[in-house]
Amino acid sequence: MEERLFNVLRTHHVEYLVTDLDRAQAFYEDAVGFTVTERDDQHIYLRGLEDRTHHNLILRQASAPGVSHVGFRVAKEQDLDAIAQYLGSIGVRSHWEEKAERALGRVLRANDPFGFPIEFFYEIEHVPWMLQQFSRHHGAEVMRLDHANYISPKVEEASDWYQRHFGFEMSEYTVSVENGRDRIWGAWLHRKQTSHDLAISNGKGPRYHHASFIVPSKDRILGAADRLASMGLANNIERGPGRHGTTNAFFLYLRDPDGNRIELFTGDYLLVDPDWEPVRWDLENPQRQTFWGAPAPKSWFDESMVAFDWEGNPLSTTDPTLPDRPMMID
Amino acid sequence: MEERLFNVLRTHHVEYLVTDLDRAQAFYEDAVGFTVTERDDQHIYLRGLEDRTHHNLILRQASAPGVSHVGFRVAKEQDLDAIAQYLGSIGVRSHWEEKAERALGRVLRANDPFGFPIEFFYEIEHVPWMLQQFSRHHGAEVMRLDHANYISPKVEEASDWYQRHFGFEMSEYTVSVENGRDRIWGAWLHRKQTSHDLAISNGKGPRYHHASFIVPSKDRILGAADRLASMGLANNIERGPGRHGTTNAFFLYLRDPDGNRIELFTGDYLLVDPDWEPVRWDLENPQRQTFWGAPAPKSWFDESMVAFDWEGNPLSTTDPTLPDRPMMID
Amino acid sequence: MEERLFNVLRTHHVEYLVTDLDRAQAFYEDAVGFTVTERDDQHIYLRGLEDRTHHNLILRQASAPGVSHVGFRVAKEQDLDAIAQYLGSIGVRSHWEEKAERALGRVLRANDPFGFPIEFFYEIEHVPWMLQQFSRHHGAEVMRLDHANYISPKVEEASDWYQRHFGFEMSEYTVSVENGRDRIWGAWLHRKQTSHDLAISNGKGPRYHHASFIVPSKDRILGAADRLASMGLANNIERGPGRHGTTNAFFLYLRDPDGNRIELFTGDYLLVDPDWEPVRWDLENPQRQTFWGAPAPKSWFDESMVAFDWEGNPLSTTDPTLPDRPMMID
Amino acid sequence: MEERLFNVLRTHHVEYLVTDLDRAQAFYEDAVGFTVTERDDQHIYLRGLEDRTHHNLILRQASAPGVSHVGFRVAKEQDLDAIAQYLGSIGVRSHWEEKAERALGRVLRANDPFGFPIEFFYEIEHVPWMLQQFSRHHGAEVMRLDHANYISPKVEEASDWYQRHFGFEMSEYTVSVENGRDRIWGAWLHRKQTSHDLAISNGKGPRYHHASFIVPSKDRILGAADRLASMGLANNIERGPGRHGTTNAFFLYLRDPDGNRIELFTGDYLLVDPDWEPVRWDLENPQRQTFWGAPAPKSWFDESMVAFDWEGNPLSTTDPTLPDRPMMID
Repeated sequence: MEERLFNVLRTHHVEYLVTDLDRAQAFYEDAVGFTVTERDDQHIYLRGLEDRTHHNLILRQASAPGVSHVGFRVAKEQDLDAIAQYLGSIGVRSHWEEKAERALGRVLRANDPFGFPIEFFYEIEHVPWMLQQFSRHHGAEVMRLDHANYISPKVEEASDWYQRHFGFEMSEYTVSVENGRDRIWGAWLHRKQTSHDLAISNGKGPRYHHASFIVPSKDRILGAADRLASMGLANNIERGPGRHGTTNAFFLYLRDPDGNRIELFTGDYLLVDPDWEPVRWDLENPQRQTFWGAPAPKSWFDESMVAFDWEGNPLSTTDPTLPDRPMMID
Repeated sequence: MEERLFNVLRTHHVEYLVTDLDRAQAFYEDAVGFTVTERDDQHIYLRGLEDRTHHNLILRQASAPGVSHVGFRVAKEQDLDAIAQYLGSIGVRSHWEEKAERALGRVLRANDPFGFPIEFFYEIEHVPWMLQQFSRHHGAEVMRLDHANYISPKVEEASDWYQRHFGFEMSEYTVSVENGRDRIWGAWLHRKQTSHDLAISNGKGPRYHHASFIVPSKDRILGAADRLASMGLANNIERGPGRHGTTNAFFLYLRDPDGNRIELFTGDYLLVDPDWEPVRWDLENPQRQTFWGAPAPKSWFDESMVAFDWEGNPLSTTDPTLPDRPMMID
Repeated sequence: MEERLFNVLRTHHVEYLVTDLDRAQAFYEDAVGFTVTERDDQHIYLRGLEDRTHHNLILRQASAPGVSHVGFRVAKEQDLDAIAQYLGSIGVRSHWEEKAERALGRVLRANDPFGFPIEFFYEIEHVPWMLQQFSRHHGAEVMRLDHANYISPKVEEASDWYQRHFGFEMSEYTVSVENGRDRIWGAWLHRKQTSHDLAISNGKGPRYHHASFIVPSKDRILGAADRLASMGLANNIERGPGRHGTTNAFFLYLRDPDGNRIELFTGDYLLVDPDWEPVRWDLENPQRQTFWGAPAPKSWFDESMVAFDWEGNPLSTTDPTLPDRPMMID
Repeated sequence: MEERLFNVLRTHHVEYLVTDLDRAQAFYEDAVGFTVTERDDQHIYLRGLEDRTHHNLILRQASAPGVSHVGFRVAKEQDLDAIAQYLGSIGVRSHWEEKAERALGRVLRANDPFGFPIEFFYEIEHVPWMLQQFSRHHGAEVMRLDHANYISPKVEEASDWYQRHFGFEMSEYTVSVENGRDRIWGAWLHRKQTSHDLAISNGKGPRYHHASFIVPSKDRILGAADRLASMGLANNIERGPGRHGTTNAFFLYLRDPDGNRIELFTGDYLLVDPDWEPVRWDLENPQRQTFWGAPAPKSWFDESMVAFDWEGNPLSTTDPTLPDRPMMID
């Protein structure tokens, strides 16, 4: 592959497919604490309190749940053309969305070489932020999108591709030691100066595991669990609250009424220096997942979100070669 | 005075006079975070999330602000008759409120020997608590009434009276050393097992300084300041957030739109043992007021709430003999 | 049984048996955050930051772990004689400890009619509290003892006995519905004005499940989990952090290096009024245990602490008739 | 001036002059919660829990307090030569420190065109981070350096210079409206993706107002105030805790035993997108300083830290032309 960089700023938004918009809005807006920017008959556009761009999450009416795409914002309009050219040069089909996404300028859509549906854009409509409108903060006080999590049987290749061509850098990684050699089982990759924009974990894929949203404090994560449970939504709490070993973040995993998964996330770190040495975790170390040692539930390993191609067909998946679900029996 | 005990359970509620019920409800319910139990054309009855009785605060429509009375709950109905008899025996006029307060049984109203309008009752209507209805918690999440604060030129006498006849006990006190002798300048008195139900401070009185309400955490106090400021109510924040030396509580003082004062309060202690040795603070120690050393604003010392007699006339006041406003210039 | 009341103030302390005092001190003082009052060659006496009495936990050197006794403080010295007489009248052997516990006056020791080793005392040495010595606060900042938890096959009888003769009152209870009739499966009983001093749960007993200690905030509980995990003690974290449905408290369960269990506990409520209506929970409701729905681990149900008689012999146990471990498979 | 960019990564460290190293260490390490990396007879090198480089604060033994320099890390070694050349081209003297700072590679020292002593470097020794060594976290748990604050009579010029030549961008600014025209009174400039690395405020200068350090939560800021006050250091708490309007951060300002000022800071925001529209604040808006409306104390406006030239001579200062200390009488 040719080595070149296109300046991706950050993982900017995700589009989730839901089967009932009203039910989904009740979950995301009222129960969890997103801010609705606007809604039409097919979509709800949501954002966080710290966001100044139109949305970080789109809920789209569909007949089955899943993830339509992850959206990367690039640093300038011309990056889009360069990316289109590059993708063509490596045989990856892409297209300019004709009816581009609401609030965006030109949108370049593709499935990456590992199958993941992604889009690139620069222009986006700005909206007022809500950061100091404290009386409108509610629920978990979702602040902004943090990252998306892929599941792939090709973690090393995918991680390499995003680093070589899109400027991502590795903050942390998990290894499975195979025949005395470190094989990358999970990779935490970032463009913005936090622990990650993209995590890629080993497993049957391409699938999406979750999108993760920043909340302002651990207290707001505990409050989210209380709030959901008091609304009869205890079953939508899948894992946590707890602290991750990797990235050090405090987390809560939720399933929406369609089973789509989000993470509420707070307390990783700032990563500015170019001579950062990635943090290595052994797959056998139970503290990498939950620093306090508690295992994740079975569903957290077994269930992931279907990814789709442009025509809306679910992508076929491939089994991984590295060990699967290593921590479930802890 | 005859020595006898009547079993007061706790300071249960206060009635504040406000000149605009709608404006007051917007402040107490929406901005601060009380729960409204019910409202009629002259009153709003509010409670906390932990309360199972009908109200801990009544807002009554009036032509001028102030405090109509503080309500003490006694342990049994017969205590009321015994108190009535005792008050008569010491020449304090009392009466059974003919049109008793909403949700209460028999109510005995009096001005105590130091002028403070108080009432005693046992029966009160129970309502569901909101403790685990987390999705309805909002604002500072007011939990319950903690205490009322009197200002009186006769702190020693008033403190003695509540202790000898109503079972109050002293948790902490402030002294002004006069001619080498401790004079009680402020007294913290409790019936329930917390630091106080009643605080009596030296000053021109009888006046009320504030009523204080428990919130669940320091974080909710900081959130209250944020919320109020974002609603254009920064001027209603009078003092704090800060930590008191006395009682160790974390506090925020607010003025309602009529100038009535409340305290949001969290983090004092439990006080169960009968051999408690009261904590002594010297008036000259600036940390007794704010443990971190910051002085209170002038208004906090100079402005207090008018107390009224039964006929609704403001009570005349007397100047104190002990030093006034000792900490203002710190 | 004769009905009479002796004024128990509160559950005051517990004595745990440990096989290695140094190792136990490292756990309780350094890792968890108790304050050591003093130590001799056989005991370590610990207390909380809010305590003004000599200890709330004794660690005693022994050849096997377990619970030697729970100590109840009574309101006055004469209560002890009355209790001794009462116990004799119902055929319960008791004795005055000849070499009374360090820092205590007279101590009356007995096994209650259900087998639990308990002691009563009034006099205890006072020590300075650490409440405002913030620079010495550390770890979870243990404040005070909250309650002890018994496991017994006779929950109804034991709960009745403590209520009828020692003034305990029921704040909450769990029922197993047997043939359409509520059978008390768990009882939360209090003397001090919080949700409990004593909890009695159905199971093979007499055994102790845990003693519970108050910490000042949820944040300190999360910090305790972080601290323990960073010290290589993740395996000592058994359950939580989470919120209980019953009592509404936020909790963390720990096992000490000998397997003895403690709970860190915060955020229940104040309970003052005599007309409190106990909160009823159905055993089938998973939210009673963890309000967020997550099940407790198997060990939490299967493992409990051995209780001993005066001679230091482990007590034999009886199986319960009501269903055991109801929530484990949730 | 020639327009060119040198890639400054971030404001990396500051060097404070102190008159008593032991006393300073007691303050910064024990009372506040910095981590000491190492100490020699003239210096103490401190860092935060999240830091992986050798120091973010140097305390240097001197005969009088003040600020020796602010250190900027650049993205690569060659940037240093380019900066040296650029400074020469505009007549600013610079030199390579012969005996370079401990743990650093080449160091280029200069006074910027507005007088501020600064240094540039790339190479620095790495050290292990303490992020998950929770049992060693203490005090306010200082995480990393956030920013330095300059006081200058030439805010517009200085702000422009750092933006044009070093890649800083403006996140927020305060204006004094003079003859209907916005004059920049304060500028918040960032390189890393947070609200700022450098703030420049109007006033007699060149002087330094403070360096600011990130702590993980508001709770740790409140805990810092408690801790300091309990150690007899209440007088070292100058302002706060409170919330800034500008940047939205929660703050506490401290004076060290020599009077040098630091800020503890948490809760601003992430700033990634290049089309950020700077937030404008009017100097007349009291909420810009303290969102809750409380005024800063007089000392906060009147007292600043002396800056020195290479030879160790205090720099002479110039009065500002825009209004000084605007909020003091609020």
